Amino acid sequence: MPTFTRKVPEGDDRERLTCADCGYVAYENPKVVVGSVVTAADGRILLCRRAIQPRQGYWTLPAGYLEMNETVEEGARREAWEEACARIALDGVLAVYSVARLGQVQVIFRGHLAEPDFAAGPESLEVGLFAWEDIPWDSIAFPTVIWALQAWRETGTAPAPARLNPASDQRGVHHLPLEGAL
Amino acid sequence: MPTFTRKVPEGDDRERLTCADCGYVAYENPKVVVGSVVTAADGRILLCRRAIQPRQGYWTLPAGYLEMNETVEEGARREAWEEACARIALDGVLAVYSVARLGQVQVIFRGHLAEPDFAAGPESLEVGLFAWEDIPWDSIAFPTVIWALQAWRETGTAPAPARLNPASDQRGVHHLPLEGAL
Repeated sequence: MPTFTRKVPEGDDRERLTCADCGYVAYENPKVVVGSVVTAADGRILLCRRAIQPRQGYWTLPAGYLEMNETVEEGARREAWEEACARIALDGVLAVYSVARLGQVQVIFRGHLAEPDFAAGPESLEVGLFAWEDIPWDSIAFPTVIWALQAWRETGTAPAPARLNPASDQRGVHHLPLEGAL
Repeated sequence: MPTFTRKVPEGDDRERLTCADCGYVAYENPKVVVGSVVTAADGRILLCRRAIQPRQGYWTLPAGYLEMNETVEEGARREAWEEACARIALDGVLAVYSVARLGQVQVIFRGHLAEPDFAAGPESLEVGLFAWEDIPWDSIAFPTVIWALQAWRETGTAPAPARLNPASDQRGVHHLPLEGAL
């Protein structure tokens, strides 16, 4: 296993993880998560119950890390396919969230099922469609899922500006359960 | 210098760069660029002429890589400060662009000067305000700068959905000069 220490590389202005064995500088960059609030023809929302940690057993949107050589749209469609075996179409950017605590940027789309079928992928215990009043709010995996569902509800179907972090957590540092007015 | 080879780590499904010396897996993730189309009180647009490679001497928006533990809003404001010594306020997400060729996601804001002063930072040769008809289109650094300026022009000041890549380059693979109808 490599041993990393923190030091400032030549020409840089902050400490970076550097391998003591080989000198490799492991720049830590924020990672991009892509996902979507996907609706069926009847307006119900697609949610996935996580089969993996963190937050195993909790419900989330189809979402995950963007890969290299992939656009954000391609990544969001791939994640819906991998986690929910769902073919989806995207309807614009719903929100761009920052989770500074984790070094994440989340690009969340509105989307709809392009084909009616779906099923649990390998990272999901189950996948289901939920009417708004049936969403399992007490069993949601991450704050950004709650934010995205709320943004989806508030913006309606008309084209709307992309949402950013709510005023109650502008830097994305809170854990669940969320406090305040969501 | 570390020597990296490509192999599939245990539990993964694609090849990753792995150090032959120490075994470190250098996951390559897309990087997040944050920037903004910033206007002065008279409506002119702030552009920076690059002092560094790539595209040294060409004009760009104040933009750069998001750092860890930083929100996209914080990063966009920091870049305006570093590159143009400008204090800016943000007015929403203008566009989210994917440059699959480089593994980049660019989150571009609308913004305006919060204070009238600006000056060239260390990565800029000069910084200036340009009326739309004076923008140096032949000397723009990157395709996404042209896209963002065009999106800014087209969306006007009313709140608008975030733009995505233009149909002419949905994956972000073209080099300048751009072809087609921009």
